[in-house]
Amino acid sequence: MKESLEYVYKEQKELSIYSGIGALLGWDQMTYMPSDGSSDRAEQTALISRLAHEKTTADALYDHVRKLNETITFAQLKEHDKLVVTRLKKDLEKTRKIPSAFIEKISKTTTLAYQAWEEARAKKNFYHFAPHLEKIIELEKEYCTYINLPGHPYNSLLDDYEEGMTVDILKKEFTYLRKNLIEILDKIKTSTLFQKQKPFQKTLSIENQKKLCNYFIKKMNLSKTKFRLDVSTHPFTTSIGNNDVRITTNFERKNPLFSFYSTIHEVGHALYELNLPQNEYKDTVISDSPSLGLHESQSRFWENMIARNKHFWVFFYPVFQKIVPKKFTTIALDQWYRIINQVQPSLIRVEADELTYCLHIILRFELELMLITDEIKVAEVPDIWDQKIQNYLGVRPHNDVEGALQDMHWSGGSFGYFPTYAIGSIYAAQLFQTLLKHHPDTLQNIEQGDFASIITWLQNNIHQYGRLMTADDIIKTCCGEGLNSQRYISYLKDKYYTLYNI
Amino acid sequence: MKESLEYVYKEQKELSIYSGIGALLGWDQMTYMPSDGSSDRAEQTALISRLAHEKTTADALYDHVRKLNETITFAQLKEHDKLVVTRLKKDLEKTRKIPSAFIEKISKTTTLAYQAWEEARAKKNFYHFAPHLEKIIELEKEYCTYINLPGHPYNSLLDDYEEGMTVDILKKEFTYLRKNLIEILDKIKTSTLFQKQKPFQKTLSIENQKKLCNYFIKKMNLSKTKFRLDVSTHPFTTSIGNNDVRITTNFERKNPLFSFYSTIHEVGHALYELNLPQNEYKDTVISDSPSLGLHESQSRFWENMIARNKHFWVFFYPVFQKIVPKKFTTIALDQWYRIINQVQPSLIRVEADELTYCLHIILRFELELMLITDEIKVAEVPDIWDQKIQNYLGVRPHNDVEGALQDMHWSGGSFGYFPTYAIGSIYAAQLFQTLLKHHPDTLQNIEQGDFASIITWLQNNIHQYGRLMTADDIIKTCCGEGLNSQRYISYLKDKYYTLYNI
Repeated sequence: MKESLEYVYKEQKELSIYSGIGALLGWDQMTYMPSDGSSDRAEQTALISRLAHEKTTADALYDHVRKLNETITFAQLKEHDKLVVTRLKKDLEKTRKIPSAFIEKISKTTTLAYQAWEEARAKKNFYHFAPHLEKIIELEKEYCTYINLPGHPYNSLLDDYEEGMTVDILKKEFTYLRKNLIEILDKIKTSTLFQKQKPFQKTLSIENQKKLCNYFIKKMNLSKTKFRLDVSTHPFTTSIGNNDVRITTNFERKNPLFSFYSTIHEVGHALYELNLPQNEYKDTVISDSPSLGLHESQSRFWENMIARNKHFWVFFYPVFQKIVPKKFTTIALDQWYRIINQVQPSLIRVEADELTYCLHIILRFELELMLITDEIKVAEVPDIWDQKIQNYLGVRPHNDVEGALQDMHWSGGSFGYFPTYAIGSIYAAQLFQTLLKHHPDTLQNIEQGDFASIITWLQNNIHQYGRLMTADDIIKTCCGEGLNSQRYISYLKDKYYTLYNI
Repeated sequence: MKESLEYVYKEQKELSIYSGIGALLGWDQMTYMPSDGSSDRAEQTALISRLAHEKTTADALYDHVRKLNETITFAQLKEHDKLVVTRLKKDLEKTRKIPSAFIEKISKTTTLAYQAWEEARAKKNFYHFAPHLEKIIELEKEYCTYINLPGHPYNSLLDDYEEGMTVDILKKEFTYLRKNLIEILDKIKTSTLFQKQKPFQKTLSIENQKKLCNYFIKKMNLSKTKFRLDVSTHPFTTSIGNNDVRITTNFERKNPLFSFYSTIHEVGHALYELNLPQNEYKDTVISDSPSLGLHESQSRFWENMIARNKHFWVFFYPVFQKIVPKKFTTIALDQWYRIINQVQPSLIRVEADELTYCLHIILRFELELMLITDEIKVAEVPDIWDQKIQNYLGVRPHNDVEGALQDMHWSGGSFGYFPTYAIGSIYAAQLFQTLLKHHPDTLQNIEQGDFASIITWLQNNIHQYGRLMTADDIIKTCCGEGLNSQRYISYLKDKYYTLYNI
């Protein structure tokens, strides 16, 4: 037993080291790497992935894990060892369902597909990417036969990102969500305030944008000894070690607050990463988030529920006005609060406002389902995309870059990933409502720029669990119910009906 | 044969990938890593080192290499394959002399020794480090018994950094060098100009320092797609991929030109790295420098022979004066040339001027020899150090941080490393004299800021060979003779006797 335990902890430790190395290779590629380094970098990343994969699928590891899970041995384990070996067994059994040859096949296919996706974007034409997408969909279907979860085949894809989530649940939640989002949007569109609103076009210097980001980071007590902010094309968060979490932003976007809100978003992810269980769970399968949806709930929570909240700006507007140039300071708080929450249906997901964002996600979810079940052909994607976005948001792409080519996820074979963005938004609203119930003084604290109790509450109710429970169980324990888009809709109605005097 | 060839190229390729990953881990640690990342980073680095070591010492690799080196097989190989497998066999046979247990022992010992060295520095007391140094010296002696080269035991240490170099050669060269350096220094000390000279104490903003560095980098045609300049405590150069070489500098030192000259120094290393043989030699044991001394010759060449040359400043002074503030621009070129070449005996190697630098090296070489042959005890090091530096330079440390604790090399077990700094300086002078003979228009080109023909000459005479020859053979081929400190002394006399009107 002792030998097996030592073995499985040693292997998890090494996997954690590989994960950190892989994260550094990725971080550097997106931030500082000279462009000609890319071909060697691809080989460096591939080698680390292969070594980690070999370790995860090694028979020796599984044999030891199985031994530890045998009834008599298991009963003798300490409580935390039980939790680790149970989780690890489940993970390994899933991974071992997938043949190595399949991993190689999908890796080669997605490498070519990514290049084709970039070329298709350059040519603004989906059909350069279509044959690759067809291959990927065939592989995704093959993957589903290996994992073979009950119910809809797509459940096997969802499970990689959101363990236990099913098409049945999502169809129900997303149908409600879509119907209500469109309803709210329609009401807003007919409001006087919407019809009078103009795009906000003031610019803010990079220097001032940096000041705003750094002010917030400092306010959140993120220590320089464990955390960095750098620049990349697309903002992201990555963990390079247990005490080394890095986020990125981009200061060049036209929206003057893009960097500020993306920093807050990534800070939400970073706080979660830095608070994952350590001590007996350090470098084990437990010290991770149980789902992408729950991770996204942390970033959306800070970005939307906190930092687009009126109470936040009561505190932050005086700070903001000291940092930014005069052209901003003539705007009254009420007006400013409206500006940063302006609803404006648009074509690009990553630029969408808080209200319309989830319609972009639902569209992709619906397309993915139809593709996986052969209800539609790949060649039909652009037309169906354009039709759907017209129906949901009333806007129409001028070309495929504004439509079906905008996101890279499909080129990487990440089917089942998109829904987690909406799940995160729904969870965030559920958490915010629960927080306000548990701590009615929260809004006052926000108005005073005091976020400490919120951070502690998230640590206690979300972060500390790591993968000791599924996301669903964590949310149920905290909020008294699982995924519930009614809570999100009620939050959005409260907010936007007030904003647009409806 | 085909199978063996494929195998050895595949393994060299993977070793090259490991090397790049290791380099990135090191680069990040010295530049951007949040400080709390250090304990995970140590484990990441150790894992990559272990994997690379296992690959290098694997029996399968050696078996294939041996097969390829068998007479009949070898005869059938292509020319470049012959060179690769010959070089590889030599490397592996050396590595395989060292027991794995020894590698582990020295790795653990140096980890503790490095910590002790840092503590000793904090306490400014050598005796906290002494017991660790004793252990390291015992291990160095053990290492010599494994490698067991003919002649002096220290030859086995030298060979790791400067293949083929011996104590006999160095003793002869360094004796001549020391005697003549002291003689030149004594003459300078009695000169009127030396007695009247004052320390240069003007400061230069970081912004202006950066402008100077970037101007030079651009002038050297170093492409942003293959090269970066970042900041670290101690400047260094590292190769993360065949087309990804990075240097660092430090803008915070008191000397206003420290960052400029350290950048030029590292650019010399970077040019060499970027010009190492590719094509059939890419990712093989050939695509590397044959010795640290030859590598150092490239950095010293640009730093001293070119960028501290009067002709360089004829070109650069007008550029410089446009960048820096007015307080500098009142200085005439002649006076400025004297300032940047001021001789000032001092205690710290890395701050030494061009003339006195090698005396710091010779001192360490002499101490290392005595330690390895038990002529002196570790406990005697501080006293002997202080006495020697008094004899050679006429200055005396106030504490051990200014003396025997100033460099980290011994804590890492790098005995035999220091001499390469002096070898590099000597080689650089030999190369410069040969270049002037081959291309008498060089000084004119420098005056016009045209460095292209110098770069090409270095490519053709040094860089392109990689490890196809030893450093000694490369220098002999180019300069018509091996290491010759008379050339260096004659260069220094020309320069400094003119500077000090002697």
